[in-house]
Amino acid sequence: MPDENPFQTLIELKTGVISPPVDHVIRRLSDIKTIFRDRDAAEQALTGEDPTVYEVYNVPVPEETGQLQHCTSVIHPGAVGDEYHMTKGHYHARRATAEIYLCLRGEGILLMETEDGRTAHLRMSPGTMSYIPPFWAHRTVNTGNAPLVFVGVYPGNAGHDYGSVARIGFRQRVIKGPDGPQVVAEEGAVRR
Amino acid sequence: MPDENPFQTLIELKTGVISPPVDHVIRRLSDIKTIFRDRDAAEQALTGEDPTVYEVYNVPVPEETGQLQHCTSVIHPGAVGDEYHMTKGHYHARRATAEIYLCLRGEGILLMETEDGRTAHLRMSPGTMSYIPPFWAHRTVNTGNAPLVFVGVYPGNAGHDYGSVARIGFRQRVIKGPDGPQVVAEEGAVRR
Repeated sequence: MPDENPFQTLIELKTGVISPPVDHVIRRLSDIKTIFRDRDAAEQALTGEDPTVYEVYNVPVPEETGQLQHCTSVIHPGAVGDEYHMTKGHYHARRATAEIYLCLRGEGILLMETEDGRTAHLRMSPGTMSYIPPFWAHRTVNTGNAPLVFVGVYPGNAGHDYGSVARIGFRQRVIKGPDGPQVVAEEGAVRR
Repeated sequence: MPDENPFQTLIELKTGVISPPVDHVIRRLSDIKTIFRDRDAAEQALTGEDPTVYEVYNVPVPEETGQLQHCTSVIHPGAVGDEYHMTKGHYHARRATAEIYLCLRGEGILLMETEDGRTAHLRMSPGTMSYIPPFWAHRTVNTGNAPLVFVGVYPGNAGHDYGSVARIGFRQRVIKGPDGPQVVAEEGAVRR
């Protein structure tokens, strides 16, 4: 039976900020420095300010089947060494759940992989609606000069598993190439 | 296990048209004339052209738990008598499933109700992200002069039940009032 009421938030389409204020996660470089391959560049960057790499605005919804989690993500432009700013990346705790990303602003690349070793990537730009099927881990990379802003929607019971990606890394990275962003295979050491 | 590949569509943010071409539903006035309260006005309008009231672009996704159906809807501006153009309205076949509407363009009102008689409405404008909780029927009304364009996302297994609304109508209507759009209670006859 219906025990919830309809509600609404407002996304500022240019910045991705959601109002009224919702759960706001800020990931600074110091929080996620180990995800970048150039550890020296990360430490070097941290001798100055501690830049915000990305932010997530999460609208709270019951963590139940049939509900829909939704959020905006804002990845700020920048790089650590030759590697663009990116999210930590994660699987859903309940693997058999999809996610949709609708890009509102900016340019980026969505990296995806499965536990059995498949990889994929999609370019993001305003209006792209990317479908991350069940079982695919996902990480998003800002390859442009402006914030990369996108809306994410996923099943209420999906949950997050950041540990798997933190342990074994991602099979692909996005680096600054001579002709622009380049998706490259991760080097051997990290993939155990 | 992962048996699907990631994929992407592109929404033209101004028109709501999705490319590459996907399932495209066109609802003309002749298809839905019985949803408007002024039957004479509907018949009168049909003596001329048969206007398109709304269109839906559906991205095909497996109808399974954990997947996410997604579509754009475009409600063209106009009215039948004093009642604005609107969608048929429906419950989800599996009632315990939510839906999210992200408005990209235009102005409108989202009408909602439950089988046990509760009603609600939300104003839509660009950037509004409306949450239709499980168990709430939903109908969308274009109250502006431009197309009302929005993205809908809902659980893969939700399904549609148009029959319940077709049989008993909606408890609220949106009509042109002296000071703009007005949400009014449906008159007795239709609610059996």
